[in-house]
Order: sequence, then structure tokens, then C-alpha cells
Amino acid sequence: MRTANTKLLAVLDAFTRDRPRLTLSEIARAAGVPLSTAHRLVAELSSWGGLERDEDGGYRVGLRIWELGALAPRGLGLREAALPFMEDLYEVTHENVQLAVREGHEVLFVERFAARGAVTVLTQVGGRFALAPTGVGLVLLAHAPAEVQDAVLAGPLERYTRQTVTDPARLRRLLAEVRRAGHAISDRQVTDDAVSVAAPVRQRGAVVAALSIVVRGDAAGVVRPYVNGVMAAARGISRSLGD
Amino acid sequence: MRTANTKLLAVLDAFTRDRPRLTLSEIARAAGVPLSTAHRLVAELSSWGGLERDEDGGYRVGLRIWELGALAPRGLGLREAALPFMEDLYEVTHENVQLAVREGHEVLFVERFAARGAVTVLTQVGGRFALAPTGVGLVLLAHAPAEVQDAVLAGPLERYTRQTVTDPARLRRLLAEVRRAGHAISDRQVTDDAVSVAAPVRQRGAVVAALSIVVRGDAAGVVRPYVNGVMAAARGISRSLGD
Repeated sequence: MRTANTKLLAVLDAFTRDRPRLTLSEIARAAGVPLSTAHRLVAELSSWGGLERDEDGGYRVGLRIWELGALAPRGLGLREAALPFMEDLYEVTHENVQLAVREGHEVLFVERFAARGAVTVLTQVGGRFALAPTGVGLVLLAHAPAEVQDAVLAGPLERYTRQTVTDPARLRRLLAEVRRAGHAISDRQVTDDAVSVAAPVRQRGAVVAALSIVVRGDAAGVVRPYVNGVMAAARGISRSLGD
Repeated sequence: MRTANTKLLAVLDAFTRDRPRLTLSEIARAAGVPLSTAHRLVAELSSWGGLERDEDGGYRVGLRIWELGALAPRGLGLREAALPFMEDLYEVTHENVQLAVREGHEVLFVERFAARGAVTVLTQVGGRFALAPTGVGLVLLAHAPAEVQDAVLAGPLERYTRQTVTDPARLRRLLAEVRRAGHAISDRQVTDDAVSVAAPVRQRGAVVAALSIVVRGDAAGVVRPYVNGVMAAARGISRSLGD
């Protein structure tokens, strides 16, 4: 049986990156509750500040949720520690600089600096992506528990470009190499014109996040000069977290 | 009577910027529920991802809340629109650059860039502050509904420094000047060594946020060169929001 609380959380779950604005009937449908129940739950959440109604009668996630989320140590806490190092890396390179954590079998991006002239990346802050093809994902997967690695390697491994590694055996070798080298390189695995270099962020010995830079080009051409900078910045963040 | 949902939200409300990590009994006390109820609510929130347990058995806000909060238009949505303009302003000045919205009778900071060498400010992302003494707060208060202005002016107006304006009549004149000039200057009203310049961010005609730069010094000495930069950046953000 679904409790009242389960239904309340289902109302919140109705809001996604693809559908950040919903009408009352859309909320009812997504949460699987009658319209009258949705009405009551939405009223409760709105008076708390968790939902906000716009001029056209649609609902969006409210600032109270954002404010609470700012207390999440893996969200804003991590990001506050990382920001000075990300700013330095961004200022020197003017390329995309990204910070991500692992949520289950996906990457969740918690911060991103993107210059207007930099190569296009598919990620957004608060957005998710597959682990295997991204630089940050390779780092996070390389240091994930064995059962997470096994589940991801069991597939399916989605192909984004001709360069995407979809062979589990090859991916497993790549992960071993990431652990050995202390950084990951994703060479045009997500888009045809971008390569990323990523390095692990550690706290009390565990890899809690990954930092990357994404630049136009391929691994052979452009990536070397960035490796030391990304690794140094990631170590700086780790130190400020208490590595 | 308190509903199940009210209690669930009270558990979330137990977490604050001053107390971001709580034990189960602290949660029970803060939410005003028996320990057994707190245990069940915390379990529900944890399995949803809204709370996370640390190694020492304490609870913190979970990444799921952060992820949902990223959908709030006044949080991350506003911040995404503002980021390129804030980056430019930061890169030119290397001073503190802040973005804030009004929540009730307070300022809520949604983004902040702070250089390591810049003057110390008392604000944090996700943190709140009084409206009246801050540059961003003066802008937001100047454009707030009359009943908000009346309530804030009715006091008490807290004093932070000898410069803090605590006289309601003087504050009201200051707000009129902010509307006339299109920017606000808070001259050492929060700390003795900092002055801030703030300008309004508009969306569909309404002031939805304020942008500021906070520099070491006082209004007479250092503030002039920054006024145009802050106003131009705030107009840029407004334009990208659809002013």
C-alpha cells in the first residue's frame, strides 16, 4: 500500500529535467494519484515552498527545495570546496570544466563552467549521463564497487559516436588503466569533436567525485597539456575536503 | 492536527545551514515527533534519496533533493542564465560577485564567486541575510510589494556596523534613490571594510533577482568604476531571461 508520504514524494518525482513545469493534471497522472489527492498534495507542498505556481497556473519546483538541496554535502558542499580550483582551471584554459559524482549507474553533474567559445558538451548541472563514455564517468566507474562495475559492464553499453567503447572487455582494461594512471581520457566517445581529461577527487581515501576538462579535438592532438592541470586541481579539491 | 505529510516536511526542515548534520534523536526533537515516528520518516526519506547517512550514523540532506532543487527556476535556472555574465564580471574584477533573490523578508544567495584575495563577505550560496543592509537586498526591497517594504521598515532594523542604516525614514529615501538610479550602493553597512554595488535583474518586467559586486573600501573611494559593469551584467542576465 502506498502511504501518504510515498504519494507526496511521487508528486516531487513528477518533476524532471525534461518536464520541469507541470499542470495539476499532469502531476496527478505522473504521480498516479486522483486529481483531488494531487490538489491537496500540491497545496501542502506549495505552502511549504517546495512547489511554486507560475502566472499561467503551471507548477515548478520551489526555492525551498533548492535551499535544502544546498545543504547536501555531495551537491553544494562538494561544489563549494571545488569552486576555487575550478575557477583557476577555467581561467587558465577557457575550456569546459566539469565536476560530477556517481548516482547509481549514472554520472550526475554538480558544477560546470562553460566558455561561450568552447566545444559543445551534452551535460547540464543537475543533469545525468551514462558512466562509461564520459571522462568523469570512467574515473567514477574505475573506483566504483565491483557490483556497480559488473552491472555497467553487463550492458547494454550505448554507442554515441564511432569512438564509443562498447566492448565490455576493452572497457574493463580501460578502467584498470584509469586506476593505474590516476586519470581518464575519453576520446570523442560522446561527441565527434570533443575529448575530456578527468581525475578523481578523494575524501578520506574514497573517490567521491571526478573533475574534468572537455576540449575540442582528439586525444592524440590536444589532450597532453591538460592532464597535469586537471590532476593538480583534483588533488587540490581532495586536500580541501580532507583526502 | 498534523498530517503525515506535515511531519515528513518537518523532518526536512530540521536540517539548516547551522545544523546540516543531525542524529536521529536530534531530528525527532527538531521535528517534534516521537523517536519511532522519526525513524520511519527518516527511513522513507533515505530510501527515496532525500537523506543520506554518513559513516558515523548521522544524517544529511541527500543528493536527490539537490537534484530536484536544480529544477527550481529561481535557483539553478536563474543561475544558469546569470553564470556567463557573472564569469565575465569576475574575470575582469577578481572581486566577489553575488546573485540573490528575495524570500519573504530575507535575501537568499543563489550564486557567489569569491576570489581568495577578495574582501571577506558574510554570505554563502544557499544562505540567507537581512534585506536592508546589503546591496542586493536594497535592490530587492526597493522593488518589493509595498506590504513587504512596510513590514521591513517597521523593523527591527538590525545594526551590523556604524554605517548600517537603521532609521526607517532614511531607508525609505534610500529605496527611492535605488529605483531612480537603477542601482544600489551599500557602503560598509554589513562589514567595516566592504562596499557593494547591486543592480536589478528583470524578467517580464518584474525584478526577480539582484546582482552585486562586493569590494574592499568605501563608496567614496572605490565604487564608481564598478557601477557600469554591474548594471551592464544585470541587463545582460535580464535579456537572456526575457526582460
